[in-house]
Amino acid sequence: MDESKSYAASQALDEVMIGGTVGEVVASENAHFAVGDKVVGQGGWQEYAVVEASQRGVLQKVDTTHIPLSAYLGSVGMPGVTAWYGLTQIIAPKAGETLVVSAASGAVGSVFGQLAKARGCRAVGLAGGPEKCAYVVEELGFDACIDYKQHPDLKSLSRALKEACPEGIDGHFENVGGLILDAVMLRTNAFARIAVCGMIARYNGGALPMANPALILVNRMKIEGFIVSEHMGLWPEALKELGTAVASGKLKYRETVAQGLASAPEAFIGLLKGRNFGKQLVKLI
Amino acid sequence: MDESKSYAASQALDEVMIGGTVGEVVASENAHFAVGDKVVGQGGWQEYAVVEASQRGVLQKVDTTHIPLSAYLGSVGMPGVTAWYGLTQIIAPKAGETLVVSAASGAVGSVFGQLAKARGCRAVGLAGGPEKCAYVVEELGFDACIDYKQHPDLKSLSRALKEACPEGIDGHFENVGGLILDAVMLRTNAFARIAVCGMIARYNGGALPMANPALILVNRMKIEGFIVSEHMGLWPEALKELGTAVASGKLKYRETVAQGLASAPEAFIGLLKGRNFGKQLVKLI
Repeated sequence: MDESKSYAASQALDEVMIGGTVGEVVASENAHFAVGDKVVGQGGWQEYAVVEASQRGVLQKVDTTHIPLSAYLGSVGMPGVTAWYGLTQIIAPKAGETLVVSAASGAVGSVFGQLAKARGCRAVGLAGGPEKCAYVVEELGFDACIDYKQHPDLKSLSRALKEACPEGIDGHFENVGGLILDAVMLRTNAFARIAVCGMIARYNGGALPMANPALILVNRMKIEGFIVSEHMGLWPEALKELGTAVASGKLKYRETVAQGLASAPEAFIGLLKGRNFGKQLVKLI
Repeated sequence: MDESKSYAASQALDEVMIGGTVGEVVASENAHFAVGDKVVGQGGWQEYAVVEASQRGVLQKVDTTHIPLSAYLGSVGMPGVTAWYGLTQIIAPKAGETLVVSAASGAVGSVFGQLAKARGCRAVGLAGGPEKCAYVVEELGFDACIDYKQHPDLKSLSRALKEACPEGIDGHFENVGGLILDAVMLRTNAFARIAVCGMIARYNGGALPMANPALILVNRMKIEGFIVSEHMGLWPEALKELGTAVASGKLKYRETVAQGLASAPEAFIGLLKGRNFGKQLVKLI
């Protein structure tokens, strides 16, 4: 059985933990980078990173004139492009359609819903707790947000989705899996599209079956998994829309910032448990 | 809960049973149809059908010079187009890829595998029993066929698939669901495509979960359900390929013919239980 295989490279023991980082160049022996340049890259969990000039693309200079540096790790970075890709390349919505996203207050979900609204769709989020739900509706502008913690079973969650999506669900961006995916599938319209970006419910252990896959046929659905780093050719187009929207203040986001390298493990565990609010960052120094 | 909804119209009580038919015009008050014309349409379970001229498209004249009339209910009809659609529009294989189809000796599966072979793919079938499997390999030209009745659990079936598909599975045409779908998913390569045409395992009652939907993400799969009658615009292209292949003898098929209208109910039940071999037909008169 290959059930344990993963699409992400394993973290090697006794190596720096993998992680996206932004920062400032403090020393350079490369003509393309000057001291003071703001950069984004895979620096990992460490205060200083040495990057070889030959590792092209590992470090990218970014413009912080109108966009805060940290946004390049969130709305104008991998999470933002992830939301953009699922929305535009898999769901490809028409104005007036209803789109749902789980983990709606997170770095990906918050972008997804706002991009959906910008395209004239009804955006419905799922998030854990009244505070997150209020933020999703009041600050991010979603049409509705369901507190999934108030709906611990399929019947209750499906009913809440019916209320929030009176015309059914045309597109769904899945970050979680399990019960949420099952409940959404029950409310899909014909030709619904589901972009699968995460199955975080599974990361916390245990099998995670899909209750009723026959709905894929009954509703002629398309379900597609993706990893955004495999579609680098589309990043410039995505980042152009996302950067413009953040710079103009149209695309809102929130960050949870843990202080110091030592806080990183706890912050990471909190992320898997949904304790963060918006993009989870660690301020290293 | 909408779990019981279906994509097919219900059969009304005390009405003629719905069913595709071929036959011959025995009387006509319409200039477009002459006595003796061979036709295909939705005649239903009856020996004679009266069709209104205003019901355009209900009856189609067909050419039986090179194609047997009954083939218009199979390889050159709805089942053939179903196979063609899943192959070309959802799976869209490249030569050298490995494609799997369940119910491989059936009206749809047999066409799917032969079209896959014609495109330079490795075609692997699943069928019930050694006789069907031998037919799939020896007569239809599949590269391999697995007798799923010999592999009643996930571990055993998954191992059989690994043997038959040493380079993994790139595309799958699903007629059955349940255990077969679960086992296939375990053997998929990255970017595998699954066309869902049937979940016949479910029609016989009981829930039918998908064991490991996280594989959709891990392998960046696309799973898409479809009903071929919603894509009429593509039928001419499909029928051109299928008709040419049948007329030239390249596309082989088998039929199970029950004799007489009274045998229809038993034949239909047999179909759901896999007792038929190739396309199940009922010779009405």
